[in-house]
Amino acid sequence: MKAFFFLLLNAFLFAEGLVAQAQTNPPMIWHNPALAEKAVVEGRLWQTGLNQFYDRLPAKATGLVRTEVMNLAHNSAGTYIRFHTSAKKISIRYQVSGGLQFPHMPATGVSGVDLYAQEISGNWQWVRGRYQFGDTIRYDFPSIDSTVRVREYRLYLPLYNTVRWMEIGVPENQPLQWAAPETAAPIILYGTSILQGACASRAGLAWTNILGRNLSTPLVNLGFSGNGRMEKELIDLIAEHPAKLVVLDCMPNLSDLDLYPKEELLKRYRYAVETIRKTNPNLPLILTEHCCGLPGTNMDLGQRAGFATASITVAEIYQALVKEGFKNLHLLTATAIGFDKESTVDGVHPNDIGMLKYARAYEQLIKKILWR
Amino acid sequence: MKAFFFLLLNAFLFAEGLVAQAQTNPPMIWHNPALAEKAVVEGRLWQTGLNQFYDRLPAKATGLVRTEVMNLAHNSAGTYIRFHTSAKKISIRYQVSGGLQFPHMPATGVSGVDLYAQEISGNWQWVRGRYQFGDTIRYDFPSIDSTVRVREYRLYLPLYNTVRWMEIGVPENQPLQWAAPETAAPIILYGTSILQGACASRAGLAWTNILGRNLSTPLVNLGFSGNGRMEKELIDLIAEHPAKLVVLDCMPNLSDLDLYPKEELLKRYRYAVETIRKTNPNLPLILTEHCCGLPGTNMDLGQRAGFATASITVAEIYQALVKEGFKNLHLLTATAIGFDKESTVDGVHPNDIGMLKYARAYEQLIKKILWR
Repeated sequence: MKAFFFLLLNAFLFAEGLVAQAQTNPPMIWHNPALAEKAVVEGRLWQTGLNQFYDRLPAKATGLVRTEVMNLAHNSAGTYIRFHTSAKKISIRYQVSGGLQFPHMPATGVSGVDLYAQEISGNWQWVRGRYQFGDTIRYDFPSIDSTVRVREYRLYLPLYNTVRWMEIGVPENQPLQWAAPETAAPIILYGTSILQGACASRAGLAWTNILGRNLSTPLVNLGFSGNGRMEKELIDLIAEHPAKLVVLDCMPNLSDLDLYPKEELLKRYRYAVETIRKTNPNLPLILTEHCCGLPGTNMDLGQRAGFATASITVAEIYQALVKEGFKNLHLLTATAIGFDKESTVDGVHPNDIGMLKYARAYEQLIKKILWR
Repeated sequence: MKAFFFLLLNAFLFAEGLVAQAQTNPPMIWHNPALAEKAVVEGRLWQTGLNQFYDRLPAKATGLVRTEVMNLAHNSAGTYIRFHTSAKKISIRYQVSGGLQFPHMPATGVSGVDLYAQEISGNWQWVRGRYQFGDTIRYDFPSIDSTVRVREYRLYLPLYNTVRWMEIGVPENQPLQWAAPETAAPIILYGTSILQGACASRAGLAWTNILGRNLSTPLVNLGFSGNGRMEKELIDLIAEHPAKLVVLDCMPNLSDLDLYPKEELLKRYRYAVETIRKTNPNLPLILTEHCCGLPGTNMDLGQRAGFATASITVAEIYQALVKEGFKNLHLLTATAIGFDKESTVDGVHPNDIGMLKYARAYEQLIKKILWR
């Protein structure tokens, strides 16, 4: 039966033309981001002092933050590599060290890369790749539209896997230059699996990546699946860096009020606001409700009720902090995110529909805050 | 490293509360659709004379249609089981005979079931399940909202896998009744992998299933991945059955004009229209363009150009047939479907965003045709 399924899968893939063809002619020149002379992995706060080249937290965090957080920081969620080339063929090859997929998230989302091109006009285009998952993962972009005037490419790295090494190939005599590192202060986002990118079908559709494109602003993903808990250690690390705005979207991992009573949560949020604002007393901050507790999202009463309570709790914390005198605090409500029965894969994790809703709600609020 | 990943995955699942809990108290009574005294698998044209209980084509098709089509007919795409119960806990257990997922489609979509409830008002609700994939797959719906007045449940079967057996469990002393079989003439849809459901994140989000809910009409999914080729044998089988409307959405599998020259395609479409209309000369028919050839969908020039040509070809065939005097023919254009850079996972197969767009475009056109 396995043989039958394999045949079936092959018929499926071939018929749709998805199987990567060998790109042997002309030979490819491979560029390794780890050997670049500048910082080419963007979407993170630390470029040096890392345990592993693609990490999202610095080596100095080892022993400070919990092991689970440190392990999840090996996942390249939300990071991306920017480069310039006029090549019409681009290939990516890399290895990862975790499992390729989850039951509710495909390999293209967990372990795949995703390539976008920004036109001179600022408009974003998606570059479709042919992928092959194996011991080495391969993405080929074989016939890039030469009529589009590309300012730069942005390659999103895997959302839920750990890149061991990666190389970007272009045909020989086609140059590839790494883009100049982003220098603007980023929007920093701290949160849970939803923020890390579960369960986008591909990396570019994680809501933080959609948002980064739409705002044209560097954006840092500190999403830690199941472990985004508004912890002092993470807040201290975030506070080291200048930011344009900080999002605190941890409630989905704090919705158990027995484990995290409201007083404890208020303490954590208050610490976050005070600490992050030490060097910038008016830095805009967004606190976010739990997107999945709205009526009509699903019919699981127990689950939904818990999420609704989480939203009420963070809204109360927001009100309490405003009452204490904190300014430029903002609440992103579940209603503004607007999840419905088609928005999640499992009642918690947005599918691509939910990702789009999440990104749009943040985009509207952030534009209002930054552009007012 | 595997052990680390397993720990990580467990942390992830537990933290989000996704692991199915044992539902041992009170004991469950299991109901087997294969033992029901009426036809309970809906969304298909044949209820008897099947090789296997969950098949979408009859045994008599063996040797007539190609083996690939017959094999894909074992996949339960678009079929569903309707039932009544006032139980607030429902469980599903079943086995499948194919691989659990694809690289670009998660196990929840390929092999998972998906439960919806229709309220007395007609409104649809989604029931979130906890799943466990293994040798036997298990979905548990542990705390169904008792404030919702449910007319009936609809359990969507796996989109890309073959159900060997299935049982639906409710607590003892909670009755479960199979719904009366649907009797209205269905909308019959013949097509490709996109129609079969690739790559919805869960079965209820396949576009044919969204459409069936929104139109409140029985709907038959004859999507055959890579093998929806407007073939005489399939058309003959479709023509045996009364229908309310027929959709011919095969162009994504016919876009190679060397293999399928326009004259050959015109012949196939003409045969389909004439044959399907033998007993109902004015039966509405929809011919569909290729959704993925629009500018801005992706930057792969070769791929997009082929899809754009496929759309032009089917539009020309539509015009030719109208010119030949066929009435009540309709063309669903790629522009009406409206795919953009966020609509697919791989340039061909819609993600959930694309599924919603596809379903909406069909819904608008079908309502216009049937309600005019």
